[in-house]
Amino acid sequence: MGCKNCCSICLQCLFGYETNVMLVINNKGVGALFRLIQFLIIAYVAVYVCWVQRAYQDTDSVISSVSTKVKGNILTNSSAAGVHVWDVPEYVIPPQGENTFFVLTNVIPTLGQRQSKCPEVRWNTSICFVHFHTRKRVQTGRCVQYSDTIKTCEVQAWCPLENDTVIPKPALLGAAEDFTVLIKNNVQYPKFKFRKRNILHHINSTYLKNCTFDRKTDPHCPIFRLGDMVTEAGEDFSVMALKGGIIGIFIDWNCDLDFPERFCIPKYSFSRLDNKNPENNVAPGYNFRFAKYYKTNESTETRTLIKAFGIRFDVIVFGMAGKFNIVPTIVNLGATLSFLSLVSCFFLFFPFFPKDTYLSKMPLAQYLSCCS
Amino acid sequence: MGCKNCCSICLQCLFGYETNVMLVINNKGVGALFRLIQFLIIAYVAVYVCWVQRAYQDTDSVISSVSTKVKGNILTNSSAAGVHVWDVPEYVIPPQGENTFFVLTNVIPTLGQRQSKCPEVRWNTSICFVHFHTRKRVQTGRCVQYSDTIKTCEVQAWCPLENDTVIPKPALLGAAEDFTVLIKNNVQYPKFKFRKRNILHHINSTYLKNCTFDRKTDPHCPIFRLGDMVTEAGEDFSVMALKGGIIGIFIDWNCDLDFPERFCIPKYSFSRLDNKNPENNVAPGYNFRFAKYYKTNESTETRTLIKAFGIRFDVIVFGMAGKFNIVPTIVNLGATLSFLSLVSCFFLFFPFFPKDTYLSKMPLAQYLSCCS
Amino acid sequence: MGCKNCCSICLQCLFGYETNVMLVINNKGVGALFRLIQFLIIAYVAVYVCWVQRAYQDTDSVISSVSTKVKGNILTNSSAAGVHVWDVPEYVIPPQGENTFFVLTNVIPTLGQRQSKCPEVRWNTSICFVHFHTRKRVQTGRCVQYSDTIKTCEVQAWCPLENDTVIPKPALLGAAEDFTVLIKNNVQYPKFKFRKRNILHHINSTYLKNCTFDRKTDPHCPIFRLGDMVTEAGEDFSVMALKGGIIGIFIDWNCDLDFPERFCIPKYSFSRLDNKNPENNVAPGYNFRFAKYYKTNESTETRTLIKAFGIRFDVIVFGMAGKFNIVPTIVNLGATLSFLSLVSCFFLFFPFFPKDTYLSKMPLAQYLSCCS
Repeated sequence: MGCKNCCSICLQCLFGYETNVMLVINNKGVGALFRLIQFLIIAYVAVYVCWVQRAYQDTDSVISSVSTKVKGNILTNSSAAGVHVWDVPEYVIPPQGENTFFVLTNVIPTLGQRQSKCPEVRWNTSICFVHFHTRKRVQTGRCVQYSDTIKTCEVQAWCPLENDTVIPKPALLGAAEDFTVLIKNNVQYPKFKFRKRNILHHINSTYLKNCTFDRKTDPHCPIFRLGDMVTEAGEDFSVMALKGGIIGIFIDWNCDLDFPERFCIPKYSFSRLDNKNPENNVAPGYNFRFAKYYKTNESTETRTLIKAFGIRFDVIVFGMAGKFNIVPTIVNLGATLSFLSLVSCFFLFFPFFPKDTYLSKMPLAQYLSCCS
Repeated sequence: MGCKNCCSICLQCLFGYETNVMLVINNKGVGALFRLIQFLIIAYVAVYVCWVQRAYQDTDSVISSVSTKVKGNILTNSSAAGVHVWDVPEYVIPPQGENTFFVLTNVIPTLGQRQSKCPEVRWNTSICFVHFHTRKRVQTGRCVQYSDTIKTCEVQAWCPLENDTVIPKPALLGAAEDFTVLIKNNVQYPKFKFRKRNILHHINSTYLKNCTFDRKTDPHCPIFRLGDMVTEAGEDFSVMALKGGIIGIFIDWNCDLDFPERFCIPKYSFSRLDNKNPENNVAPGYNFRFAKYYKTNESTETRTLIKAFGIRFDVIVFGMAGKFNIVPTIVNLGATLSFLSLVSCFFLFFPFFPKDTYLSKMPLAQYLSCCS
Repeated sequence: MGCKNCCSICLQCLFGYETNVMLVINNKGVGALFRLIQFLIIAYVAVYVCWVQRAYQDTDSVISSVSTKVKGNILTNSSAAGVHVWDVPEYVIPPQGENTFFVLTNVIPTLGQRQSKCPEVRWNTSICFVHFHTRKRVQTGRCVQYSDTIKTCEVQAWCPLENDTVIPKPALLGAAEDFTVLIKNNVQYPKFKFRKRNILHHINSTYLKNCTFDRKTDPHCPIFRLGDMVTEAGEDFSVMALKGGIIGIFIDWNCDLDFPERFCIPKYSFSRLDNKNPENNVAPGYNFRFAKYYKTNESTETRTLIKAFGIRFDVIVFGMAGKFNIVPTIVNLGATLSFLSLVSCFFLFFPFFPKDTYLSKMPLAQYLSCCS
């Protein structure tokens, strides 16, 4: 008998459906307040969680590949170097067109350097001693004439030394403002097997050959005028060209992949990344030195040292794509609802809760079936 | 009396344990349905949330460092340049072996350029005027003989001008297909203090000296044949070598760090990143120009301009590591359970719910103790 | 009548507030246990979820821009090359100062290479055949004298061939240890419109001109001595200088943006990224070859091939910023609470649960009002 009874209890357990017993409070004020709270919860979930935060989506970070190509020529006519036409291989460094490219805007060249001894450019005549420190110049210990009136320490170096005290003003290649750069950007979201280029489907080749990016008229043209980018970043090209700087070209690929693919378009923005403020700064602007090496005969090597000022453009691609996924949806909705139901529970036990509210006990099933 | 009573009520509150009053519905159909739903919920949590989405894990993004080294030599024998052997320092640009490297496959050299005046290569004879626009050539305003029959505008430039209308076909360095590249990749997940290299522990040095990556036979060899990568990307090397392109080498380090470290291995894949489609495109392929500068005497500088076509390989490392963490586990399980219990509640109030179900009220504690 | 009744039921539904019927168990042991569990839950939420994991925050990944500038000079005096002063444009490759820079520490130069035929350096005299394979040298098929006693195969190449069997020891530019590098890092968290530089507000220009990073005395100075970084990475500079290597400069920008902006400061760390272990490795160290091209007369091109050993510094910027956001707060708290209430429920149905506990049914509203 015991076992049979036990079995029946077990079966009852196995096939019994349990639900919470609910309490229904029939008070119009409390009921209205309760409905208002429910409405607010639903509105919050609908508007903020779903619409603004898109919490029902799984996300992935962008993977990007960039290639860039600068176009333009400049004619300079300086007293020292004469007429010179600068083309892309001369002023774009490195030439490969990766996601960071540098456009030369100002130059201090030092011609015909070779390994030898020469007087220092800056005068610290007082004492010249045989001095070697890796952060400074290598002094020989002798004092020699730098000019008719000034004596400086002699150094072992690539001579003659560079004199970078005077920076050409206006910038030698200030006309680089009119150069254009074609930026090709290919992105993918591997989790969603999504790929796209910044040259959109509806753009044809003839348009691409002649367009220039303009936020209003040509927002999808991938060809940018250098001057426009610097202006959008809030800078003056002619000032920036003097000492150089770094401009960030931001491509924002934030996409909602629940919408058709054509709505996923890049947004461009530009801003200056280095600090132009002379205080709280060191080595303002952006410059570096490079050299071209020559041999006029077998043995001696000479070089042209170039202190290159210019604008480095960093193409920075970022973005997150979201796509509906059941897990974050359930997690976010479930958690939000359970949290907010707690909130609404506690809310009702404020002092203004009427004590004499009529309470009726009713199983949830009955209660809900009465509503339907 | 009132205070004593109050105290006893407070104590009762403090040490009272509250639980929901449950309703058990003894109907075999509903019960079976309810158990089925419970089973589905548990199955969903176990299979999808835990196994597929690994929602119990905390995640971290990969931090990566890449170095690459290309190997190979090519002998070319062209009528213009004669016999020439190309080695790595000549055809890999930049030479440092970073995560992006370019392998030269086709070349249009222009020898002996110097700053002077010469006729334009393309004919727009009609009107030559003194013209200066930074995006175009610098015209002097004169018309000169380009060939016996054609007159073109004279320009100030690095002369003679490059004539890139004819691209060598087949590609001069088409044999670059057989080059190999060694890719060393070091990754880390800082949150989990996890570090690993793409040269796995069980691989020894003698194997590394001779192996070549093959998806079937040598999936862990970090040496890749360029032709194999291009083929896996679905391209023809000899076609791609003509005008260049960009190939992405994707290294996927998605890892489940709850498993032993040896299961965390990189997965390689390859795909073309630029657009080869001639429509909806501009400047197809991948090329750039660079120059080698010479001085044959002190004053005049000449250069060899090289229009370099080739394949740029972008090593793109991505991945997320997951490791068990109590917070996402609790958040995901808790939210999922609470959401799905809501779902199962609502589900049962469908019209087919039998109205005459026998309802028995029973405290949850009693109910559950009967089950155990 | 039916409709009127129906309407009244509907109104009752619409304005009824439902709450769960709760069961209060008046047993001091169970009650105390229950309160303990509640305390643990709250402590867990407060300490771990909120304080340690900051689960109430929305997060964003860092976007970074880096520029670097190395300073220093070295005097070398080798029997072959004589006295030579090395400055930045010679030993920093590439010169632009991007987030990856290479400092030359050891050099095997091969002077005066030109396209011709010469004997191979390594002896495999046995059979020389006309051989062409892109991964090896191009053999002509002849055997020629390499030295007085050794004959090797003749190859077509840039001749004379490099002999890299002997690496200069100690490293030619071992004094590079004393060089310094200025690292400028600009980060932003676009989601929070937050921007910051690694040169902090309170640092002035005069300090920047003379400081050197030191973890204890100058933790915010952005100028790093190369030797210090290598030492912090646990390596010996003079050993590493011989064959080269890769050092990661990690800048950790993890920030809690609920705190004032001045608490968001970069943390620097250094570690070696390549594998120095000779087993389970190929091509240990870090080196690459590059060439300087010369023309001493119009026709023949010679080059100096340089096998460059050195240390590549990869500046790797990472970090996540968190800021209070209502969605993750609600999701995490709600889910945690609902999960842990489930846990506490189940916990109480262990066997030690006393069967004879006094059970009183009381609506939640009444129960809670008695507590307040």
